[in-house]
Amino acid sequence: MIILGIDPGLAIVGFGVVEYKASHFKTLGYGALTTPAHTPIEDRLCMIRKGMLELIERYRPDEMAIEELFFNTNITTGIQVAQARGVLLLTAREAGLNIAEYTPLQVKQSVVGYGRADKKQVISMVQMILNLNHVPKLDDTADALAIAICHGHTGGSGLRNYYNLK
Amino acid sequence: MIILGIDPGLAIVGFGVVEYKASHFKTLGYGALTTPAHTPIEDRLCMIRKGMLELIERYRPDEMAIEELFFNTNITTGIQVAQARGVLLLTAREAGLNIAEYTPLQVKQSVVGYGRADKKQVISMVQMILNLNHVPKLDDTADALAIAICHGHTGGSGLRNYYNLK
Repeated sequence: MIILGIDPGLAIVGFGVVEYKASHFKTLGYGALTTPAHTPIEDRLCMIRKGMLELIERYRPDEMAIEELFFNTNITTGIQVAQARGVLLLTAREAGLNIAEYTPLQVKQSVVGYGRADKKQVISMVQMILNLNHVPKLDDTADALAIAICHGHTGGSGLRNYYNLK
Repeated sequence: MIILGIDPGLAIVGFGVVEYKASHFKTLGYGALTTPAHTPIEDRLCMIRKGMLELIERYRPDEMAIEELFFNTNITTGIQVAQARGVLLLTAREAGLNIAEYTPLQVKQSVVGYGRADKKQVISMVQMILNLNHVPKLDDTADALAIAICHGHTGGSGLRNYYNLK
């Protein structure tokens, strides 16, 4: 199973692609799609869609695992991230991917074994589990890899019942 | 100029299409795209995109006028509406439409002449300005027509400078 992990955002969309087979992970790629500031949001959304289509074309993932959205700080930023997340969900679904959602708590629980783990702990566990030589430059990328790991570990439990019933 | 007015939502997307020429409005169509509850959000987003593409194909609008998003009540609903709004912006922009945004205050100011007008006043002014025989069944549809009127009245002032500079 090839899993595309996504950390949604408007300026930065973190992505991590892993293959999960026989309880082992193989890292296929990771990085971030970025969009420039001072650009109309609709154009940034078009860039995100284009970037996602390229990722799907390149890695042919079976499933997308994406972080659930919570608004705890800035509402304006939250609206922007939600608008970008809508485009990510749309693009993945139109490309035929099944979609799973996880809360940050579930991701930490699954990757570190501890729901209140801090960013640093998550990053070093991601590096260890995936046997990466370098730590990903961006937190968003590390988060995306963590979400992909979580989806593998939990056996796709975040997939909607809807899909499990098919 | 053919204007597509949009009142964004996940369950209901109100739309109103008007032609604005020589200070007069001609109503081309109005209604709502709806998506069923108890359906994964990504599938509802796909339905919204499909519906928008059909509207654009049918009416060939030049510009989309859409309501700005504020979260004043339910955050969870707000996230859903924002995700749908992202898909609406994306679809319109990919189809080459220019996009204008207006706040509810601007819409009321422009349609009724009074920023604190209530829903009823907005609806009856929409009916009068567009010379409609029947009041639109849904508030969302009336709101979409009001946004389209606002865009015509204000001479497209909600369009981004970005586009005006082109």
